[in-house]
Amino acid sequence: MPGVIVDCATYREGRRIDCAADFGRALQEARAEGHSFLWLGMYEPTQEEFDMVTSEFALHPLAVEDALNAHQRPKLEVYDDSLFVVLKPITYDVSADTVTASELMLFVGDSFVVTVRHGAASPLRAVRKRLEQQPRILRHGPTAVLYAVSDAVVDHYIDVAGELQLDLEELEAEVFSPDRGDTKNTAARIYAFKREVMEFRRATVPLADPMTRLQNPGVPFVHDHARPFFRDVDDHLTRANESVEGLDRLLSDILAAHLAQMGVRQNDDMRKISAWAALAAVPTLIAGVYGMNFHRMPELDWRYGYEAVLLVMVVIEVCLYRLFKRRGWL
Amino acid sequence: MPGVIVDCATYREGRRIDCAADFGRALQEARAEGHSFLWLGMYEPTQEEFDMVTSEFALHPLAVEDALNAHQRPKLEVYDDSLFVVLKPITYDVSADTVTASELMLFVGDSFVVTVRHGAASPLRAVRKRLEQQPRILRHGPTAVLYAVSDAVVDHYIDVAGELQLDLEELEAEVFSPDRGDTKNTAARIYAFKREVMEFRRATVPLADPMTRLQNPGVPFVHDHARPFFRDVDDHLTRANESVEGLDRLLSDILAAHLAQMGVRQNDDMRKISAWAALAAVPTLIAGVYGMNFHRMPELDWRYGYEAVLLVMVVIEVCLYRLFKRRGWL
Amino acid sequence: MPGVIVDCATYREGRRIDCAADFGRALQEARAEGHSFLWLGMYEPTQEEFDMVTSEFALHPLAVEDALNAHQRPKLEVYDDSLFVVLKPITYDVSADTVTASELMLFVGDSFVVTVRHGAASPLRAVRKRLEQQPRILRHGPTAVLYAVSDAVVDHYIDVAGELQLDLEELEAEVFSPDRGDTKNTAARIYAFKREVMEFRRATVPLADPMTRLQNPGVPFVHDHARPFFRDVDDHLTRANESVEGLDRLLSDILAAHLAQMGVRQNDDMRKISAWAALAAVPTLIAGVYGMNFHRMPELDWRYGYEAVLLVMVVIEVCLYRLFKRRGWL
Amino acid sequence: MPGVIVDCATYREGRRIDCAADFGRALQEARAEGHSFLWLGMYEPTQEEFDMVTSEFALHPLAVEDALNAHQRPKLEVYDDSLFVVLKPITYDVSADTVTASELMLFVGDSFVVTVRHGAASPLRAVRKRLEQQPRILRHGPTAVLYAVSDAVVDHYIDVAGELQLDLEELEAEVFSPDRGDTKNTAARIYAFKREVMEFRRATVPLADPMTRLQNPGVPFVHDHARPFFRDVDDHLTRANESVEGLDRLLSDILAAHLAQMGVRQNDDMRKISAWAALAAVPTLIAGVYGMNFHRMPELDWRYGYEAVLLVMVVIEVCLYRLFKRRGWL
Amino acid sequence: MPGVIVDCATYREGRRIDCAADFGRALQEARAEGHSFLWLGMYEPTQEEFDMVTSEFALHPLAVEDALNAHQRPKLEVYDDSLFVVLKPITYDVSADTVTASELMLFVGDSFVVTVRHGAASPLRAVRKRLEQQPRILRHGPTAVLYAVSDAVVDHYIDVAGELQLDLEELEAEVFSPDRGDTKNTAARIYAFKREVMEFRRATVPLADPMTRLQNPGVPFVHDHARPFFRDVDDHLTRANESVEGLDRLLSDILAAHLAQMGVRQNDDMRKISAWAALAAVPTLIAGVYGMNFHRMPELDWRYGYEAVLLVMVVIEVCLYRLFKRRGWL
Repeated sequence: MPGVIVDCATYREGRRIDCAADFGRALQEARAEGHSFLWLGMYEPTQEEFDMVTSEFALHPLAVEDALNAHQRPKLEVYDDSLFVVLKPITYDVSADTVTASELMLFVGDSFVVTVRHGAASPLRAVRKRLEQQPRILRHGPTAVLYAVSDAVVDHYIDVAGELQLDLEELEAEVFSPDRGDTKNTAARIYAFKREVMEFRRATVPLADPMTRLQNPGVPFVHDHARPFFRDVDDHLTRANESVEGLDRLLSDILAAHLAQMGVRQNDDMRKISAWAALAAVPTLIAGVYGMNFHRMPELDWRYGYEAVLLVMVVIEVCLYRLFKRRGWL
Repeated sequence: MPGVIVDCATYREGRRIDCAADFGRALQEARAEGHSFLWLGMYEPTQEEFDMVTSEFALHPLAVEDALNAHQRPKLEVYDDSLFVVLKPITYDVSADTVTASELMLFVGDSFVVTVRHGAASPLRAVRKRLEQQPRILRHGPTAVLYAVSDAVVDHYIDVAGELQLDLEELEAEVFSPDRGDTKNTAARIYAFKREVMEFRRATVPLADPMTRLQNPGVPFVHDHARPFFRDVDDHLTRANESVEGLDRLLSDILAAHLAQMGVRQNDDMRKISAWAALAAVPTLIAGVYGMNFHRMPELDWRYGYEAVLLVMVVIEVCLYRLFKRRGWL
Repeated sequence: MPGVIVDCATYREGRRIDCAADFGRALQEARAEGHSFLWLGMYEPTQEEFDMVTSEFALHPLAVEDALNAHQRPKLEVYDDSLFVVLKPITYDVSADTVTASELMLFVGDSFVVTVRHGAASPLRAVRKRLEQQPRILRHGPTAVLYAVSDAVVDHYIDVAGELQLDLEELEAEVFSPDRGDTKNTAARIYAFKREVMEFRRATVPLADPMTRLQNPGVPFVHDHARPFFRDVDDHLTRANESVEGLDRLLSDILAAHLAQMGVRQNDDMRKISAWAALAAVPTLIAGVYGMNFHRMPELDWRYGYEAVLLVMVVIEVCLYRLFKRRGWL
Repeated sequence: MPGVIVDCATYREGRRIDCAADFGRALQEARAEGHSFLWLGMYEPTQEEFDMVTSEFALHPLAVEDALNAHQRPKLEVYDDSLFVVLKPITYDVSADTVTASELMLFVGDSFVVTVRHGAASPLRAVRKRLEQQPRILRHGPTAVLYAVSDAVVDHYIDVAGELQLDLEELEAEVFSPDRGDTKNTAARIYAFKREVMEFRRATVPLADPMTRLQNPGVPFVHDHARPFFRDVDDHLTRANESVEGLDRLLSDILAAHLAQMGVRQNDDMRKISAWAALAAVPTLIAGVYGMNFHRMPELDWRYGYEAVLLVMVVIEVCLYRLFKRRGWL
Repeated sequence: MPGVIVDCATYREGRRIDCAADFGRALQEARAEGHSFLWLGMYEPTQEEFDMVTSEFALHPLAVEDALNAHQRPKLEVYDDSLFVVLKPITYDVSADTVTASELMLFVGDSFVVTVRHGAASPLRAVRKRLEQQPRILRHGPTAVLYAVSDAVVDHYIDVAGELQLDLEELEAEVFSPDRGDTKNTAARIYAFKREVMEFRRATVPLADPMTRLQNPGVPFVHDHARPFFRDVDDHLTRANESVEGLDRLLSDILAAHLAQMGVRQNDDMRKISAWAALAAVPTLIAGVYGMNFHRMPELDWRYGYEAVLLVMVVIEVCLYRLFKRRGWL
């Protein structure tokens, strides 16, 4: 079972005490003391590996079922013996411009926190380190962990939203650049971007309701002093959500603008093509006239008739070219 | 009446006892005992076939009318003597990519459950089997059946939502593939997909309200211990709904992107066609010039004039071809 | 005044008694008896024709003003002496695919119902007939009439929604059929359909609020036993509304799909046209070449030069034709 | 100050008594009597001109500031000594199809009404005349004026909505007429229409909230008997709003339909143009063939070769023309 | 620290008293007196520079963290010892048509106001000057500052909304002008405008909730007499929001109209081009016919055959030109 339990420690008066092999006993000790709590961190446990935890901490079977399966929505559920919170941390892959959501579940009880991590992205190790250097906060008990973890997750949302903002600016440059470079995949890129945004929002939007509930009284196991902290997290979450919602709307606008842009370009191309066609048609017509076989066509007998006609052709071409140029058709 | 009654059994302390021919008496016995309940399963009964059930179980005539007609919306109605719940299970036909909703009605009373099934898809037989192997849950009485059935129905929604997700990915590949294969029906396919999604949502969206009510106190005939289970079902339902709503929005985006894509392709085609037209126009023009009948046209008398002109034509063609190629017009 | 009063009867214990000439006295008798009520049906009365009714039944002047003017919205208004309900029955003209809303007002008091009908469509006669055959329901008093009328009106909404569904399927067939028949008016047809749907919704959507109020306690003159019936009507109304709202959304989608479809077809046509143009351009070019007047053009002197060139032309044409055919351009 | 005060009168028991020069004294008399009230009508007063009114009627400085500046939103504000109501009457210019909103403010106190009018459109004179002929209503005091004015303003909204409905029908005829007359400005017209609708809604939508508040208890200075009247006004307002909201949605639909229509027409035009081009290309090709200079071209020596070729050309043209005609390309 | 503290003064009975060097003592004096308050204005302080303020005024660490970082959303937070308000003033750059939001935070306590300013735009100096000339208002204490600042910020929103309105009118003129000048960047301009509007709304929309709360009882540190003032600010804010929301919707409409416009123009151009092509094709065809080499072509021997054919060409051209002109193709 060592591979599954990532970290385990009891925090007494803000100081860390590493778990002995038996976390059940550690929990009982923490409970007995009153001002301590146990933090058990797990990584993708199987049903069997989790069974002991379930019974030891008296977790609700429905919450356990959710904790073992990834693909949950962010939520907060209140059970008799603990809170169950699902968070979806996000990773942004800069090279591929993709957003990936992983999962992070927390069971928060009177004197324990169990964190279960699914997928690659997880700020847990860093959060634990930072917390352990702030014994003052750790003294708030399990709520401190819940606050610190959700704060870290939500702050990363804001970073990712910033990255997406930069991507949008690149896309804008591409769509509205005068040189039409490689417009073939613009629609596909915009669509792919929309998908990323939707992935993002699927992780962040449902979290608003739990955060609102955590900052109001009525949820058990939450320290009164912790409420303003959850309000702060909620505020950051709203910021991330507003920013990404704006992104979403701008992407729709950019797609519409791209469509209009295509129409303008098509028109330009059509006019340019037609102008060249006109340049070819006129001398062809003249040549056709002098290719007629009438017996009496005075021009044909002229000494420099041929050169004169060639000259006329060139003059007409130059005039037309200038005309089209001036009208912006070429 | 045997064809209509699909299954009938009394559950006493979690154990199944097959119904005798007379379910009216079975009901009275179950009522008398207190800890038993009768589960009667029917398939598309007619008015006449249902009449005896109606009177025996004292069902409300409005609920009975709904139970006999398919084409109901998912709902929960509270009558004096029973709850009436309508669910719409969904089947997904993989080969035709179509979603079909059938209907499933439950009357839940103090000591009976009557299930009425319409249409092909129905998870009832499997649910009953599974329940009969979990006597512990069956002891919760009629509510257990309601929970188990709605859980099975909603879990299947999530599966179907997953299938639709795969279909979307296929569609994306089709729309954004560089080779334009068979784009003629893309719009029709997207539209058909939208219809499937709407069919899906018609079954799932109205169910949210009943599930919310079932997880809160205030609905009679629902066991207190069953509330968290309905919260769980509701959570899954929300997941299915969010997933399909996202699908719906992506389909609108994909249609818009397809439109933009068409514009880009049309522009490409137009340029390609025009380039070929230009390739034909230039030699035609030259030939026209040397087809003029001027008496004095020096080139006509040259020894290799004809070959020279042909050569000029070929050279011009090659140059133009390269030019167009470089500009991406061909 | 006989042309205006369509029907008038007192219902005592569920039995019909035709009104004497003087409905004022009939009302007083009904009131005195306690278990009777008067039902007075009118058709498009003028102010003068309605004056006597107003004073006799003590109707509120604002309600009377609304009852005399058509173009009301569906609503329920509670006055001291009566309820005032406006319904908008709908007729669907199959041949013209049009939806027309007429109007139906009800004044419901302690022992009377006054129905005022505007426009062609009205289910009143049929409703009265059916009610008179159900004395049990009639005993509920004026509420029974209100229920029966709104039930008939709303049930007809569902029928009309079904008709519109069929129309949509026709439209889908037209838009997505491979043969492009008569696409000139598709956009106009979709738009006209949208107008019909809006007409429909204008009649049905505002009715949801009155129906919700009627099924909850707090509205006077409504029999307690009648509440579930209004819940049933409300359920049907929601069904009709959802169905038509879905229609509305599908119509928007179909318009967008039609636009994309037009783009695809335009592209197809452009390629086909260009292919034919290419087929004409190549032999023209060849003919131009051999129309040049060079003195020394070996082919011109060949014995079967002419036939050879014709053959070359034909061969090139056939090859090009096949090439275009294979690429799907023709 | 006579130019600013448009009208001033005390209403005692429903009878009008013209103001003496000093309206301050008139107000004191009205207050003393109890059943009288003063109605002072002003037109675009300046700060200085309004100062005396402000102090005499003890109006709140914030309300006064709003009353002196136009460009307010419709609203109802409750101050200690009076209500302040802003209405936006609308005028519709039939010739220019434009909607213009002006402004109308009312201060309603215990025994006075001050109306301040900005802009051209104002129904005040007519409302006062009508009220003075209905002493029964005038007895309700200041509320009667508030009701009568808002009723007049809202009824005019319905008229204007009707005018816009007619404009929409004209627009529909223009967009969907088979003859394409003058489509150049259709998009501009639709857009201009949308602007008018937005202007309209800016005047009417924010009024819904004040009207709802006025029909419920809790707003001071409003007579209990007046509540149903405000409910009536609110009902009309909802009617106007629904009608114009429908208009707005239909305008969006019409713009989308117009876009699709343009696509269809472009396709038609393209096919027609191409058909004519084909009609020109075929005889040109034939002429080119017989313009070749092969020494041996049998047809050239035929007696009626020339006529035969001309005939062939004409026959081909006629056939092609018929073919295109049959396929609907011409 | 002088560069960071922009201004510091105690206001006693509405009169300004410049701070001594030590604002901690000034605060204590103000507190002791009861009717005084301290206003401390800072500009982009660093953590260190702010530390003393934090401890002196007992500000909440979470609020302080927000005050030091720009990129907050407008909000109102209630802490035990003070209110924390974030406002986002807007600047509009006329030459570049861009909207920029800066930030302004206020800590409002029992006898102090601390204002922290980020970014260029800030109305603080002007607000302070104006307030100092209105001792009557200053007597309301810290609330007066909060009101005056938010009033100034929101009033400027209305000004900027007016500027954007003018920009929209310019854009409309550009999009719908008959001469097509420079349509290449229209889509880009509309999109850029949408971004500005979104920037604007990000500053104003979240402010609605704080303003609503400030005008209702329940928020500490707010003077009862100040509530109507905040209602006034809220009213102006709603006005700005409605105006910009309307702008947003019109921009979407204008983009759609622009798209339709492009379609119409493309069609016009295509017809014009085709008409010119037809003008070139007809004489080319005729010349081709008379370029055929039939031995017997009567016209070739005519005395003025050549001139006749030229004349025929000219006549046909003129007729065609007129025909096209009449049909509006040229």
